Amino acid sequence: MYYFLRLRYVGDNFRGFQYQPGLRTVQSVLTEAFGELFGNEVLVKGCSRTDSGVHANDYCITVLTPEYAPDIPPEKLPFAVKRYLPEDISVYSAEYAPDNFHVRHDVKYKEYLYLVDNSPVPDPFYTRRSWQYLYPLPEESDIIMHNAGQYLVGTHDFSSFMAEGSEVASRVRTIFYINVKKSILKSKLFEIRVAGDGFLYNMVRIIAGTLVDVAAGRKKTEDIPEILKKCDRKYAGMTAPPEGLYLNRVVY
Amino acid sequence: MYYFLRLRYVGDNFRGFQYQPGLRTVQSVLTEAFGELFGNEVLVKGCSRTDSGVHANDYCITVLTPEYAPDIPPEKLPFAVKRYLPEDISVYSAEYAPDNFHVRHDVKYKEYLYLVDNSPVPDPFYTRRSWQYLYPLPEESDIIMHNAGQYLVGTHDFSSFMAEGSEVASRVRTIFYINVKKSILKSKLFEIRVAGDGFLYNMVRIIAGTLVDVAAGRKKTEDIPEILKKCDRKYAGMTAPPEGLYLNRVVY
Repeated sequence: MYYFLRLRYVGDNFRGFQYQPGLRTVQSVLTEAFGELFGNEVLVKGCSRTDSGVHANDYCITVLTPEYAPDIPPEKLPFAVKRYLPEDISVYSAEYAPDNFHVRHDVKYKEYLYLVDNSPVPDPFYTRRSWQYLYPLPEESDIIMHNAGQYLVGTHDFSSFMAEGSEVASRVRTIFYINVKKSILKSKLFEIRVAGDGFLYNMVRIIAGTLVDVAAGRKKTEDIPEILKKCDRKYAGMTAPPEGLYLNRVVY
Repeated sequence: MYYFLRLRYVGDNFRGFQYQPGLRTVQSVLTEAFGELFGNEVLVKGCSRTDSGVHANDYCITVLTPEYAPDIPPEKLPFAVKRYLPEDISVYSAEYAPDNFHVRHDVKYKEYLYLVDNSPVPDPFYTRRSWQYLYPLPEESDIIMHNAGQYLVGTHDFSSFMAEGSEVASRVRTIFYINVKKSILKSKLFEIRVAGDGFLYNMVRIIAGTLVDVAAGRKKTEDIPEILKKCDRKYAGMTAPPEGLYLNRVVY
């Protein structure tokens, strides 16, 4: 059987999604859990690589089971696998995957959420679930960051917003939207949403770091188109830390 | 100096507020942190005992410093003590306490928040931060629980809602309001708010457990006045687990 599943995980204690020998990754934990359920030859593929400490409110995988495996109806799968999963990850929906479906290539777009908590002292409920940026930002930082972000929307060469040393054939990507707003969850929490057809390594974290630089006055809104044009990582802002980043929505 | 402070903490890794030899409690961690800042004779008092695993969005303490201690202006105190506090606790405001102020006796009322997450599979972001009640409750459970809760509002003998074996002079308490609603944070999350002038041991957790019993159909709304009248713990519902409980607001 070939299943398509959606899941959530808290990234703190994972060394990212992808399998790495000897390390606790999302892929290895899932492969082990589905291995218990279906047999060891199970094949788990993910929609995206995520870094150590990055969270997922919505992450998609396919699970290909060996021929001898029991045929579990998809609607029962989230409950069947629950007992084999640790508390920092859960599968919340499952269906049969269409033939020839590819969980990474067939993504139409992904939305990332980046949380910046600007409380003056760290909020313990948001530790390792946000960027605890303690230096006070202006009240209207949501508007400042939103406006600056609009220069990034569209199809561009995002070389300036890619971690140095990454190997990739093309650095052209399309960002569909960037929205920045104050959270309804609590005061001084800013939510940055970035949706695009694909992302370079660290791209959302460099965008978040650059927008915070603009809010803090270290860069100007009008600098953004210049930074894009340079196609050079050193012109963009800092790479915001992984703990503020959530893969938030995956659309096929 | 005599300070009044407000703080937040994540309860997972604390054995409640009150000092217990050899255990990690909120009081012992705070006494140690303020001891570093002011000297070892510092005296930390809390507004309430909270159990192991119970959280606080708002908790009040007083800190009495020894005479030789440095006089730190209150507005600087949250930042000064930050370096001595672990990541699961933070002080977010401070002022001088009035003379004769008593942080526990002078409380006018406290509001508790109880979170019931009724997602069919556990949400990893709410593990140990809510009661993960996986058995599906009716869609309108917020209304059912709210209505049942109204029978508890007012001044009553709450013996039925007190953990057995507690020693207390009077079991009469006044509940000012009980509000139950669906959370805006996510679907299937119910928020139960209970405010009162004082609470018996486990009272809010037994109220939450009883309201969930009513939502689940194991008890009826009309049973609530009967349960109150019995003045006997065995007639109320189960004690909901500590991880769903937050001390949410303390008013003087």
